[in-house]
Amino acid sequence: MQRLDARDPGFAAAFAALVADKRDDDADVAGDVAAILRDVRARGDAAVHELTLRFDRVDLSATGSLIDADEIAAARVQVPAETLAALEFAAARIRAFHAGQRPTDRDATDDTGVRAGWRWSAVAAAGLYVPGGRASYPSSVLMNAIPAAVAGVERVVMVTPGPTPLVLAAAALAGVTEVHRIGGAQAVAALAYGTASIAPVDVVVGPGNAWVAEAKRQLYGTVGIDMVAGPSEIVVVSDHASNPDWVAIDLLSQAEHDPAAQSILITDDAGFGDAVAAAVEARLKTLATEAAARASWDAHGAIIVVETLADAVPLLDALAAEHVELMVDDPHVLFSRMRHAGSVFLGRHTPEAAGDYVGGPNHVLPTGRRARFASGLSVADFMKRTTFLECGPVGLRAIGPAAATLADAEGLPAHAASVRARL
Amino acid sequence: MQRLDARDPGFAAAFAALVADKRDDDADVAGDVAAILRDVRARGDAAVHELTLRFDRVDLSATGSLIDADEIAAARVQVPAETLAALEFAAARIRAFHAGQRPTDRDATDDTGVRAGWRWSAVAAAGLYVPGGRASYPSSVLMNAIPAAVAGVERVVMVTPGPTPLVLAAAALAGVTEVHRIGGAQAVAALAYGTASIAPVDVVVGPGNAWVAEAKRQLYGTVGIDMVAGPSEIVVVSDHASNPDWVAIDLLSQAEHDPAAQSILITDDAGFGDAVAAAVEARLKTLATEAAARASWDAHGAIIVVETLADAVPLLDALAAEHVELMVDDPHVLFSRMRHAGSVFLGRHTPEAAGDYVGGPNHVLPTGRRARFASGLSVADFMKRTTFLECGPVGLRAIGPAAATLADAEGLPAHAASVRARL
Repeated sequence: MQRLDARDPGFAAAFAALVADKRDDDADVAGDVAAILRDVRARGDAAVHELTLRFDRVDLSATGSLIDADEIAAARVQVPAETLAALEFAAARIRAFHAGQRPTDRDATDDTGVRAGWRWSAVAAAGLYVPGGRASYPSSVLMNAIPAAVAGVERVVMVTPGPTPLVLAAAALAGVTEVHRIGGAQAVAALAYGTASIAPVDVVVGPGNAWVAEAKRQLYGTVGIDMVAGPSEIVVVSDHASNPDWVAIDLLSQAEHDPAAQSILITDDAGFGDAVAAAVEARLKTLATEAAARASWDAHGAIIVVETLADAVPLLDALAAEHVELMVDDPHVLFSRMRHAGSVFLGRHTPEAAGDYVGGPNHVLPTGRRARFASGLSVADFMKRTTFLECGPVGLRAIGPAAATLADAEGLPAHAASVRARL
Repeated sequence: MQRLDARDPGFAAAFAALVADKRDDDADVAGDVAAILRDVRARGDAAVHELTLRFDRVDLSATGSLIDADEIAAARVQVPAETLAALEFAAARIRAFHAGQRPTDRDATDDTGVRAGWRWSAVAAAGLYVPGGRASYPSSVLMNAIPAAVAGVERVVMVTPGPTPLVLAAAALAGVTEVHRIGGAQAVAALAYGTASIAPVDVVVGPGNAWVAEAKRQLYGTVGIDMVAGPSEIVVVSDHASNPDWVAIDLLSQAEHDPAAQSILITDDAGFGDAVAAAVEARLKTLATEAAARASWDAHGAIIVVETLADAVPLLDALAAEHVELMVDDPHVLFSRMRHAGSVFLGRHTPEAAGDYVGGPNHVLPTGRRARFASGLSVADFMKRTTFLECGPVGLRAIGPAAATLADAEGLPAHAASVRARL
C-alpha cells in the first residue's frame, strides 16, 4: 500500500503513476485463441469436445455438452434453503431494477409531414459465459441473465466448464434456457459460430480469463459482446467520522477478489487514514481470503490524503473507478460534482458488497478507467434499435431537394436520382 | 444478379448462400496495425508524422497536423451557397432527431427504503475518423459529429487524411472543435493514446478502410468504438404497384457505393421483378458511378420472388439488412411483423437516399447481418451511465442479510463482513 498526500510536491507524478497502474492481464494469447476459433468454426462440436478434453479433462464424446433439465432441477434441491431464499430475493430485486431500464420507442411526425422514430427489439439469443473454479459466482449468473430475460430474449444459453449446484440454481432462477458444460475460448466460439448441438447466439456476455476475453474481442462484430473486463477496483472517499473498520473491510472486499484488484482510500484526515491502515491489518488476519487480499493491498492499495474532500473530485474523475463509495454525511454533494464512475455507493451504510448482490443495479461494470466511456451491463445490451423514416409525397417534396443537392456534391448520382425521380 | 423463387425446391439452400455471402474486406492487416499502434504509443507525434509521410506522402514535420481555424473558415467560403444551405438544413434535421435520443436518468426509492438509479453523462472527448478520397462524405461528418454534440461532448476531434472544403465546412457546422490532417491506423492510435499535439479521446467513431477498422478493433477497451462497419446493403420489398424505375434506382443507390455493396429486391410478382431488372440495366448506363454499381449488382444483387409479401418477413429477419425499403400501400403491417434491420424506409415515397442526408435518423448503421444485435449510431454512444445505490441503516437492515448469505456461499468473507459490520 502506498500513501500519497495531495499537498506533497511530488503528488501529481505519483498520482499519475497510480492512474496508469496497469493491472490487466496482458498475456499474449491472440494467436492461440485465433487457432481455437478457426478450429471450432471448421469442425464444430468435434473441435469443442477435443479442446474440452485437452484443457478441462472432461470427456463429452458420449454425453454431449448439454446439461439436462433433471440435473438442473436436482441442483436446486442441493442448495441450502437460506441460500436459495437469498438468491430469490436478489433475483427479484435485480429484476425490478432492470425492468426500469426497458428503453422507450419513438414515433413522431414533424412540421414537414415527415414521420420518423425508432423501435427497440430484443436479440433472439444471448450467450452467458460463467467461469469455473473460484470465480464461479451465482450472483454473476443473476446479473448477466436477468437483463437478458427482462429485454425479452427468447433463448439464453449459459456455458460453464464447472457448473456448481449454486450456479445451476441461479441459472434456473434467472431464466437461462440452456446450459452447456464447456468453457474457454472454444465455448465462446461455439456460442458465436454455432455447432450442430449449440445454435449460434447474437450476443455473448460474462467474465472469463484471458482466453475468454480475447475470444470475445476477436468475435466482436460476429456477435455483440459486453465490455472487456479487467480486475476489480474500489475508491472509498471518507471523512474522519466514518468507522475506520467499515472502510477497511470495504477496501478488502475488493482486494479479496484478486491480487490484481485495487483499493484506494481518499480522505481529508491523515490520522483517519492511519486508523484505516491499522484496521486493514487487523481485518486481513481474520480473512480466509487473506493471501489474495494482502497481495492486492500491498501491490495496488493506496491511501490518499487531500486538503478538503472537494479536492477528491478531480482524482475520482481521473481514476474513473468501477466502484466509488462516498462515506460522508451528505454524499449527494460529492456525487453531483463527480462525473466518471461505474457505480457509486452513497453514505456510510451502503457497502459496495450490498450492491454486488441485492441492491438492484448491475454488478457487471467497466474497470480500468473504462467508466470514462463505458457503462455497466443493462437491458439495452440485449436489445437493438431499428430506426424508421416515412416521407410520403408531401414530406419528400419538403426535404428531398436538399438530399439531392448533397448527393450531387458527394458524387453519388444514383442517390440523387432516387430522390428526384419521386419529386 | 441472381434470381431466386421461394417456390423452387432449391430455394432454401440458395437463400442460405445469399445470407452467408461474405462481402467484408478480410485482408489480414492485424500484424501491420499492431506494429503501427505500438509505434504511435511509444513515439507519439514523431511516429504519426513518419507514417503520414510514408503512407499519405504529406510532410507534417514543419506544420504539425492541426488544421487552423482560418483554413476551416476559408473552406466554408469555397462551398457553393446551395450546398451549404443543404448541409445546414440536414444538420438541423439530424440535430432535432437526435435531441429526442437523450437518455433519461432514474432515481427511485423502493419499499425497503433503498434508493437506487442511474445518471447519464457525456464522455469528455470523442474522435471522428473521416476517410480521404471518394469516401470523404460531408454527410458522414454530420451523422457522426452531431450525436456527440447533442450528447454534450466538450471536445470533438476529427482526423482525416484529405480534408475537402465540404468536409471542413460540415465539421464546423456539426460542432467539431479540432481537426487534424492525418489518417490510417496511425490516426486512430493518436486519438486513443494521445500524443504531444493530440490529447487522447474516450470514444472513436467513423468509417474507414481495413487498417482503420482493425485499429479500432484492437483499441476497443482502450477507448469505446462504434460498430465495425462493412459494405452497405439494401433490401427493397415491393408489390407490383410501385414504379419499377424507382425501385431500380434505389437498388443502384446502394450498389454505387462499392463493388462489395449488396442490393436485393423481394417481390410477390415475377413480372414486376423482370421490369425492375430491365430498369436497372437502363439506369446503369446513365450513371457516372456505373462501374462500381454494375460490379456490385452483378456479383451480389438478387431478385427474390415470394408467394405473398408476408413470406418476405422471415427473409428480412434472416438478412437483418442495414437498409430496408417497404414499397407497399400499407408498410406498417410489414414493419410491425419484421424484427431485425438497421433502418426501415416506409412507403413508396421514402427513398433510402433521403435518409442518408436529411431524414433525421442516423445513417451510420449495422451492416453484414449485425442488425441482429447492433444499432445505428446514437447519442448514447457518446454517453455512459453511472448507477448508484443508497441503503441507509434501515435499507441495509432490510437487504443486507441476504447479501451476507450470498457472500458466504461464494466464499468471499470480506464481502460478508462489510455488510454485517453495519447491521
